[in-house]
Amino acid sequence: MSGSEERLRDDFERCFEGLAAIGRDPAGGWTRLAWTGEDRAARDWFQAEARARGLEVDQDSAGNLWAWWRPAGPPTASGPSTQAAGPRAAEGDAVAVGSHLDTVPNGGAYDGALGVVAGLVAVAELARREVTPRRPVAVVAFADEEGGRFGLPTFGSRVLAGTLDPATVLDRPDQAGTTLAAALRDAGVDPAAVGPGPDRLGSLAAFVELHVEQGRGLVDHGVPVGLASAIWPHGRWRLTLTGAANHAGTTRLEDRRDPMLGLAAAILAARAAAEELRAVATVGRVVVEPSSTNSVAGRVLAWLDARAERDQTLDWLLAAFQGAVEEAAGRHGLTVDLACESRSPAVVFDAGLRGRLAACLRASGLEPVELPTAAGHDAGALAASVPTAMLFVRNPTGTSHSPAERAEADDCVAGVEALVAVVEELACR
Amino acid sequence: MSGSEERLRDDFERCFEGLAAIGRDPAGGWTRLAWTGEDRAARDWFQAEARARGLEVDQDSAGNLWAWWRPAGPPTASGPSTQAAGPRAAEGDAVAVGSHLDTVPNGGAYDGALGVVAGLVAVAELARREVTPRRPVAVVAFADEEGGRFGLPTFGSRVLAGTLDPATVLDRPDQAGTTLAAALRDAGVDPAAVGPGPDRLGSLAAFVELHVEQGRGLVDHGVPVGLASAIWPHGRWRLTLTGAANHAGTTRLEDRRDPMLGLAAAILAARAAAEELRAVATVGRVVVEPSSTNSVAGRVLAWLDARAERDQTLDWLLAAFQGAVEEAAGRHGLTVDLACESRSPAVVFDAGLRGRLAACLRASGLEPVELPTAAGHDAGALAASVPTAMLFVRNPTGTSHSPAERAEADDCVAGVEALVAVVEELACR
Repeated sequence: MSGSEERLRDDFERCFEGLAAIGRDPAGGWTRLAWTGEDRAARDWFQAEARARGLEVDQDSAGNLWAWWRPAGPPTASGPSTQAAGPRAAEGDAVAVGSHLDTVPNGGAYDGALGVVAGLVAVAELARREVTPRRPVAVVAFADEEGGRFGLPTFGSRVLAGTLDPATVLDRPDQAGTTLAAALRDAGVDPAAVGPGPDRLGSLAAFVELHVEQGRGLVDHGVPVGLASAIWPHGRWRLTLTGAANHAGTTRLEDRRDPMLGLAAAILAARAAAEELRAVATVGRVVVEPSSTNSVAGRVLAWLDARAERDQTLDWLLAAFQGAVEEAAGRHGLTVDLACESRSPAVVFDAGLRGRLAACLRASGLEPVELPTAAGHDAGALAASVPTAMLFVRNPTGTSHSPAERAEADDCVAGVEALVAVVEELACR
Repeated sequence: MSGSEERLRDDFERCFEGLAAIGRDPAGGWTRLAWTGEDRAARDWFQAEARARGLEVDQDSAGNLWAWWRPAGPPTASGPSTQAAGPRAAEGDAVAVGSHLDTVPNGGAYDGALGVVAGLVAVAELARREVTPRRPVAVVAFADEEGGRFGLPTFGSRVLAGTLDPATVLDRPDQAGTTLAAALRDAGVDPAAVGPGPDRLGSLAAFVELHVEQGRGLVDHGVPVGLASAIWPHGRWRLTLTGAANHAGTTRLEDRRDPMLGLAAAILAARAAAEELRAVATVGRVVVEPSSTNSVAGRVLAWLDARAERDQTLDWLLAAFQGAVEEAAGRHGLTVDLACESRSPAVVFDAGLRGRLAACLRASGLEPVELPTAAGHDAGALAASVPTAMLFVRNPTGTSHSPAERAEADDCVAGVEALVAVVEELACR
């Protein structure tokens, strides 16, 4: 191992451990829900870590934190530069990297955290190599990406991009009854000032998010780092199956209108359609009424989460699902209501930017494998406003949103090395 | 209509309406959960109604109410007789009829109530016809038959019969946290004194419970009143399917261990086995963890309620269910635990008593149709201690445990007439 490699690995491990010390949950994994004490501790950690690397931190109008490395003065370990923080409208050529600090409840150590830590370490590594930026570089920590507290995933990036109007959600409560507005206020963010940031986004030439892979695609390809090609279109539908509650002992099978039989059909139809169409579909949330051991159920609610490579495929999947459920409903005397709760179109990452990232990987001796992802990301929320791309780091088990989520240290370091090369390519040549 | 018929119908309707005025639930139907204000109002109504018919009321050691009509003094409308209340050890030949006053939440007007009202009206009608009892007759209102508050169905009859030890359940709480002991105390029943009543049961020659049918067997046979042949064996099993919680977007189908697929197999297997074996089986209660729209579930609990004509058939049903669930679990990488929560063997009602009831029906011009039932009843709880039988009254829709439960007035009157004939046959000849 060269001295440079060892230095980068040490910096990465120290920095990653610093963040991983925040929000350990006695019930397992990490819980840093947006705007809670744990999340605020992580935001404080980010600012301190950035300033220690000579970066200047500012907060945008959506509560996202930006740590800047500017052309005029490369970062040093001796303290912050004297430049004013914040984006400059005249720039238009800044390069941002980063991810998010919040987690789902009892989540893993890598989701979000890896991308933020990699950004901080990459910029510092470039400075140590005496590379100087020709264009501004920002390491961003997006706010409330997971939506684990208020059910609003990619809050910070969507508000910034103007695709989520905060006024429509500020009164939304968390499980304890605290509204989003109150939570923002507690965290020192003025809810009345929360809104889009077109000038800031307009100052960017590119955004690159490094993220632990949430599946096993890179394991199959045998490479530590890869590229995202696109985010699959994704939808959520609420299925309501209404039958008739009755006595489980005395109601003859032929007299029953049992919505659980519709649920069984829905679960199997989702799986079969996803297999057929090489998509994913999940029924993971169910409400049964009255949910009594000795009663035939009267009503079942079930949610379908479905994602596919193309919008057309998602349409086909939904049609197959609906057809199978209606067929079962007809046989069992049920009524069916299927309501779309949300639907996101496909996000295809910027082809030019992906090409430049692929060249960086190739230059580092890595085959530039491209994988689609079916997960939402801040990169997806920004892709319509800014040329955007993603780097993935291999996940041995593919497990995500779980304490078991993992990436090998060597793979993390390979990811940081790739990000070093990308930032150098995009901002320093 | 003869004067006698009209008198009986008027008495039935007045008496039934008096009870139906208690516990009307604004959310629908009737809610008289054991030992609540509504239940206590119904118990007060029973005592007042019995005393107005010249019957003497006492309460047994399990909180059940008994209204006695004794050989020495037929009831009159002018007030209670002067006899001492309570069973007499020397009797051994008493005849009891009745059912229960409590309901499930939002239940129907007939379940339980019909049998108690029919008993009161039948005894009074015999007295009006100047029939005199040769043996003591009791109209019984059993306590907490439904188990809708503490999850202990047929509480009063099982405690009386010595098959439920109250000491093991007195600290059981209702949903509001009130224990059974506290609820009994509030209702004037000393929890420390609650226990079996072998002397009281030993004093009985027969118990006959009239009940609204909870299925459509009598509709198919075209008769207003029928007999129970037996209560089917019945069991409840808790199924635990454990897989692995994961991201609904990024986890490939082939990497999933989704317990919802095991649930679907369980629901369909229960139905298929019940169809094949002419039994009933229901999955009506389910808990999904974490029950998140964008997560593959990690664990599913589901309860199987199964009832069949014979114990052997119930064994076959369970084996088929378990086999199908384990097959699905094997395909999807799930672990399976299937635990029996309760199992009741078949109850076959007393053949001699059934024969005498059948003769009574035949004498009234009714074909004595015999039907098995898959519901639990106080009659089932007593059948091992006392010769026991049941009369069913036709239910046009078969609906039960629902505000929609119904019986035609003519059929109810036919049921009361049958009970008049039965009490005359058993106690007055």
